[in-house]
Amino acid sequence: MKFSQFFIPTLREAPGDAAVVSHKLMLRAGMIRRLANGLFAYLPLGLRSFRKLERIIREEMDAAGALEVKPTVIVPAELWKESGRWDTMGEALLRVKNRLGGDFVVSPTAEEAITALVRDDLSSYKQLPLNLYQINTKYRDEVRPRYGVMRGREFVMKDAYSFHTDDASLARTYEDMGRAYRRIFRRVGLSVIPVRADSGAMGGSGSEEFMVESEIGDNTLILCKRCEYAANVEKAACKPDFVSVSVSAAREAAAGIPPIERIDTPDVKSIAELCAFLKTDAEKFIKTLVYTASNPNVDILKSIGWKNSGNKNAPATLHFVALIRGDLEVNEAKLASLLGASDISLATDGDVERITGAPVGFAGPAGLKDVLIIADESVSAMTGAVTGALVKDVHLQNVAFGRDFEPHLIADIRTVTAGDRCTLCGEELYEKKGNELGHIFKLGYKYTKTMKVSYLDIDGKAQTPLMGCYGIGLDRTLATVIEEHHDDAGIVWPITLAPFEALIIPVKYDGVVKEAADNLYAELRELGIDTLLDDRNERAGVKFNDGDLIGIPFRAVIGDKNLNNSPPLIELKYRADGKTRLVELWKAAEIIAAEVRAEIASFAGFAGGET
Amino acid sequence: MKFSQFFIPTLREAPGDAAVVSHKLMLRAGMIRRLANGLFAYLPLGLRSFRKLERIIREEMDAAGALEVKPTVIVPAELWKESGRWDTMGEALLRVKNRLGGDFVVSPTAEEAITALVRDDLSSYKQLPLNLYQINTKYRDEVRPRYGVMRGREFVMKDAYSFHTDDASLARTYEDMGRAYRRIFRRVGLSVIPVRADSGAMGGSGSEEFMVESEIGDNTLILCKRCEYAANVEKAACKPDFVSVSVSAAREAAAGIPPIERIDTPDVKSIAELCAFLKTDAEKFIKTLVYTASNPNVDILKSIGWKNSGNKNAPATLHFVALIRGDLEVNEAKLASLLGASDISLATDGDVERITGAPVGFAGPAGLKDVLIIADESVSAMTGAVTGALVKDVHLQNVAFGRDFEPHLIADIRTVTAGDRCTLCGEELYEKKGNELGHIFKLGYKYTKTMKVSYLDIDGKAQTPLMGCYGIGLDRTLATVIEEHHDDAGIVWPITLAPFEALIIPVKYDGVVKEAADNLYAELRELGIDTLLDDRNERAGVKFNDGDLIGIPFRAVIGDKNLNNSPPLIELKYRADGKTRLVELWKAAEIIAAEVRAEIASFAGFAGGET
Repeated sequence: MKFSQFFIPTLREAPGDAAVVSHKLMLRAGMIRRLANGLFAYLPLGLRSFRKLERIIREEMDAAGALEVKPTVIVPAELWKESGRWDTMGEALLRVKNRLGGDFVVSPTAEEAITALVRDDLSSYKQLPLNLYQINTKYRDEVRPRYGVMRGREFVMKDAYSFHTDDASLARTYEDMGRAYRRIFRRVGLSVIPVRADSGAMGGSGSEEFMVESEIGDNTLILCKRCEYAANVEKAACKPDFVSVSVSAAREAAAGIPPIERIDTPDVKSIAELCAFLKTDAEKFIKTLVYTASNPNVDILKSIGWKNSGNKNAPATLHFVALIRGDLEVNEAKLASLLGASDISLATDGDVERITGAPVGFAGPAGLKDVLIIADESVSAMTGAVTGALVKDVHLQNVAFGRDFEPHLIADIRTVTAGDRCTLCGEELYEKKGNELGHIFKLGYKYTKTMKVSYLDIDGKAQTPLMGCYGIGLDRTLATVIEEHHDDAGIVWPITLAPFEALIIPVKYDGVVKEAADNLYAELRELGIDTLLDDRNERAGVKFNDGDLIGIPFRAVIGDKNLNNSPPLIELKYRADGKTRLVELWKAAEIIAAEVRAEIASFAGFAGGET
Repeated sequence: MKFSQFFIPTLREAPGDAAVVSHKLMLRAGMIRRLANGLFAYLPLGLRSFRKLERIIREEMDAAGALEVKPTVIVPAELWKESGRWDTMGEALLRVKNRLGGDFVVSPTAEEAITALVRDDLSSYKQLPLNLYQINTKYRDEVRPRYGVMRGREFVMKDAYSFHTDDASLARTYEDMGRAYRRIFRRVGLSVIPVRADSGAMGGSGSEEFMVESEIGDNTLILCKRCEYAANVEKAACKPDFVSVSVSAAREAAAGIPPIERIDTPDVKSIAELCAFLKTDAEKFIKTLVYTASNPNVDILKSIGWKNSGNKNAPATLHFVALIRGDLEVNEAKLASLLGASDISLATDGDVERITGAPVGFAGPAGLKDVLIIADESVSAMTGAVTGALVKDVHLQNVAFGRDFEPHLIADIRTVTAGDRCTLCGEELYEKKGNELGHIFKLGYKYTKTMKVSYLDIDGKAQTPLMGCYGIGLDRTLATVIEEHHDDAGIVWPITLAPFEALIIPVKYDGVVKEAADNLYAELRELGIDTLLDDRNERAGVKFNDGDLIGIPFRAVIGDKNLNNSPPLIELKYRADGKTRLVELWKAAEIIAAEVRAEIASFAGFAGGET
């Protein structure tokens, strides 16, 4: 491609609203332009990289046995009503009415559409497993789109949905997808942190997020300084500094603890105030928090044995109490997950007063009635704790687990933080911000049951298939590659995503320099190298700067002086390390082509190495 | 690909609502499935053909110097308000409000988005010409989507938009696009009828539609039995059977015509009734019709010299009178085009009475006042005609053009029909129904002026660029290929769009047959042939029928009997002509590969031949 016939409107400065480096560089390099808040168009240069990413993802999906399909972007609302997401998805779902008054959805994901397609044509177990994917336009009506294509409203996602007869088959496809994802990210030069939902547990995992470290990340990651432990803080576990105790063991131990004692604590409410007042450590206290859960799962409540669970309809909101050792913090995401709730928040002061019989600050487990109590494992190991007394300005001492109170559920509801110990190896944990590029997930029966999908098994009996889903955001991945591969002068593309592999810069596009440049261009194209020839009538400095900005890996600079050498030379410069070398003109095309191929092979080999 | 690992849910019968052969076959072959009225998903088999079509179009666009971009599908309404189409596009435009109350459009085409992109980055004439294209999802909120993907609501279109400094540059790109389109259609095995808007006129054309003959076509085409004349009936011209006369010549000729004579014609209103009453031919009458034009173009009215044109604002509706020889029919599309009106319809009886002073059936040009009169060229050649008298139950004889009336405009407003004579060669014309697959169009300044695009010319003066646009519907093209390439048993794919090039059918996938089939499959893949191996445990008849239905061009049938021959043989069958031949097993892969390549080359050569 000749620069003059291409369209690369580079900018000296990025517009003021571009806050992160990938957004700035994509605008400055003429890769993208803003059409509206959260809506970005790809210009020709940006689209070349985008298409290369698309191709890599398609290759890896096909190699893993997934089959490409193309549902529509606009999908009838009925399907979303069937799955229930029409109601639960909220305002992020862009809804549209057609001229006949029908309701439609601009797809943010395609569980419904793909499940509906499979439902229509699935008859026999012989058709399974089946893994269908698309690389298609999606829309999420984000309130605050940010960081360019990193968090846009319209975006392109590769989303795959697999269907299975049994857990083993789902596990195989899930692992295949995980391997394909790792290959994809390596092929584009990204180091991802695979974050398993239950890294701490042994055996199969139900969800894995592919994270990249990022200052602008949405997620907090908990990582081990020694081993490979990595978890989203919402799920992270740590090695406890106590030994968990069973309720019966706790009851026995409680025999040795002195009876409960009241302490007047006028106006002393916080743990810190109590520590000072009682001259003791936070570890001696049980923190008692009242929460409100929205839409808790009725089956889970039943399994906990919560008495109101006989009610067929789950309560829309449920108040409950969480207990944790005074020096630790409760993790609301873990609570939400435990209860299958759509949201967890601290109860209002009024609710706290109604439930505990005392103003905020004097809650405690002993004597609490008619409310679900969930205790962190840390509480089970405490012997004789300080708690609120359910009376204003009064606390209790020597409160014993198993004697004075008994929670309905003991679980890990603790927020792991930097400094806690790794659950796998005991080393210290640390925190990082991360961005999610991909996610693989075992959905189980969630959609196939609500949308009534079935097949006949080998005995001719109707069965419901299991399902998995696997997504990668293309725009965000591309922006992340730039976040990880740039310098002060511009983008430093990995060869696999570079819009062009080689750039020829004639210092002045005229006379023998022009002739040499045109010849090299023809030779490189002949050799199958994606080449850009900067044939503009611009100063060399402008061309060098644009070349650095758009980040082509190999650059051939052709000037009078080197050409006049005997034999004629040109300068070869590498974008990644800035190194230059002189090569003979007549050999230049072969040398560049060989180096481009070696570089591509190094990424491919990298990819192939992992199984 | 192995059949058992693919997903081809073939159907014995198409659902009842599939009315045309391509829709039926696409459903039966498992290429597409319906998600809702006018919304179709492509399954893996259909998508393979779709992607091949996409690749061919992309290759030809790139070869013609167009640059691919990717604007968003969801576009801010402001751009459509700028261009004016927010108001004029009507209900076919799918509009959507986001959560913040902003108006957006689900793009049916992208003139606005692309013009906005170019506007932001266009500064100098050096950047022109520029031709940007996309292959992307579009949506038209059709009231009655029909015929499967032939006329769906969501579809994929290749749309290109070019920008130019002058007419010559626009004409070059326009011609390049026309050539690219002809190559694309030839490469996919379609015979298109290029229909120029002004085939009759010499010199450059402003619009060319690429039509295919189709019983279910939206358009009526007028074609010549001898030469290449082809026109949409909305624009078709024919060789007149009269000699047009200028107004001054008509005035002179009128001197020889007897004065007007009144005839009482009680209750005689239609031309047919008049012919019977006066015992004469329809050719002797001037048909006088009153029309209502919506949103006529004020500049055009001014150029005609219509007196109300001094009014800055064009009237929203304009009543006018059209005259034509009694045996001919008025073409409303031509009238709309003449007046630049968005719609033309016959006036109501009340309007007719108010304008002509008489009930419907007695209109005539002589004595008409204060109304725009447009006459067909046929009227100028009439000497002494019969017309209505503007009085109930009265007609006039000897009405002379140039003496008794004078139209404001004389033009071709006639509907050409089968039997009329070709304007180029004089041969008889005939009619066909056609479907439009592509359209290339010189837009001129329409969008660049309203959206205020400018660049600096060589003298540093701001100028507005000219624009062209060029579209091809992918889904409709694919369906049309099936309409033209099928037989009773199923699809007969041209090799260029076939989902697979070769199909291997082992009569029974077992023992030596399995071994031979597996080997042939491996060999063909090694040779780069897109191969499907039907490894299912199904009766041979089922495999043969499915093979015919999905239409793979080359089929290798492997059975015990032929394998036991010495040397072992397999049967090679051609989908197109049904012919079979036996080939030696060890040579089969090479033979099939050579034939596939020759077939592909024949399409490529076909394409390359045209320049």
